[in-house]
Amino acid sequence: MRDYRRLGRAIDHEFRNPGLLEEALTHRSAGAKNYERLEFLGDSVLELVVSDHLYRRFPGAHEGQLTRIRASIVREPTLARVARSLSLGRFLKLGGGELKSGGFDRDSILSDALEAVIGALYLDGGMPAADAFIKTHFADELAAANPERVRKDPKTRLQEYLQGQARALPEYEVDEIRGASHEQRFRVSCRIPGVETVFRGEGSSKRKAEQRAAATALETLANVAVDST
Amino acid sequence: MRDYRRLGRAIDHEFRNPGLLEEALTHRSAGAKNYERLEFLGDSVLELVVSDHLYRRFPGAHEGQLTRIRASIVREPTLARVARSLSLGRFLKLGGGELKSGGFDRDSILSDALEAVIGALYLDGGMPAADAFIKTHFADELAAANPERVRKDPKTRLQEYLQGQARALPEYEVDEIRGASHEQRFRVSCRIPGVETVFRGEGSSKRKAEQRAAATALETLANVAVDST
Repeated sequence: MRDYRRLGRAIDHEFRNPGLLEEALTHRSAGAKNYERLEFLGDSVLELVVSDHLYRRFPGAHEGQLTRIRASIVREPTLARVARSLSLGRFLKLGGGELKSGGFDRDSILSDALEAVIGALYLDGGMPAADAFIKTHFADELAAANPERVRKDPKTRLQEYLQGQARALPEYEVDEIRGASHEQRFRVSCRIPGVETVFRGEGSSKRKAEQRAAATALETLANVAVDST
Repeated sequence: MRDYRRLGRAIDHEFRNPGLLEEALTHRSAGAKNYERLEFLGDSVLELVVSDHLYRRFPGAHEGQLTRIRASIVREPTLARVARSLSLGRFLKLGGGELKSGGFDRDSILSDALEAVIGALYLDGGMPAADAFIKTHFADELAAANPERVRKDPKTRLQEYLQGQARALPEYEVDEIRGASHEQRFRVSCRIPGVETVFRGEGSSKRKAEQRAAATALETLANVAVDST
């Protein structure tokens, strides 16, 4: 077993059951007892902790604002940032293929493992341990949350833009799915009735690819800069 | 204020702050202080309680099985069933239009209000109160959960069926969105390259309409009966 003590210090929790932490850091390429079950649990824990925090902190915010702020915090790039701040990649157990292809620094693996660590903390120390970890390590994103400034996602904005012009709604189509199931790439096209240009987007999920296509459409049609990350 | 005592007995929790229960039962058509914020919170609480339960109860289940079982429990028809078992509709505060159109017995409103009640319980009595309520009132669905018997959703099954035959993947398109934002109906079509028939589905969300279209496609192509609810 690896020396998880340094990581334990960064996490600021002494595990009664260190096997949980090891499981949280084991990719499926390295064994059947891997982080996927803990990730399932940790995802729900993270969502509730952030929801609870936003609910109490912004008593005047509408449900739609809360949902959008939460989505701006609980997202792969944020989770990967936190994982990197803990040097989580150094502690990951990866199988041969993932090891060679640099899986220890891939956003998707880092963010999944971080959710699994949150699941492990929740099982080992209950909600208080998970809550303290999340409030500490997502402090920047939580501090920046602002119901007045949160932006809708590009698909929503494109739809509202077209509705505002009484125009037909966009249609999305998956053109291509490449790669094995754990590292698929999606290519989608976005067609808008009455617009000749087909807008395309690519990403690691259908949703992301659609958001990128929508961002491109919005930039072209409304002539605005759109952040689709 | 209505007499919530009977409901309080059914919920088996005496609210320190009865205003929370009232808010959880107020539809947006009846006021600005309505159940939507509590629904945002309760949705996350319900998801964590069910995730935690399934995680501990099925130590041998894979993440995919857990996710599918959870989706089979945390869904509108189940939530509406629980709401009806508590006669929640009788306590709903609805505005004029919703009142006349029978909103007190609509699945979508009942299930949203039930999530809001769970959010209110969580705020008033903490996680133990929410946990006890969910374990009691979702007992049938939780007891029926079985990782070996859970079925994948129709879109996944259609995709796997086509991949198994080395055929092109389906493309979904929204043909029509009707109705105001809180009671939209979606019509989508599902096209499979190389198949002449266009399969159609309709539902209260894009996802549901797509699942119905996929179910129809699967029934036609694979000649099996598919439950798309």
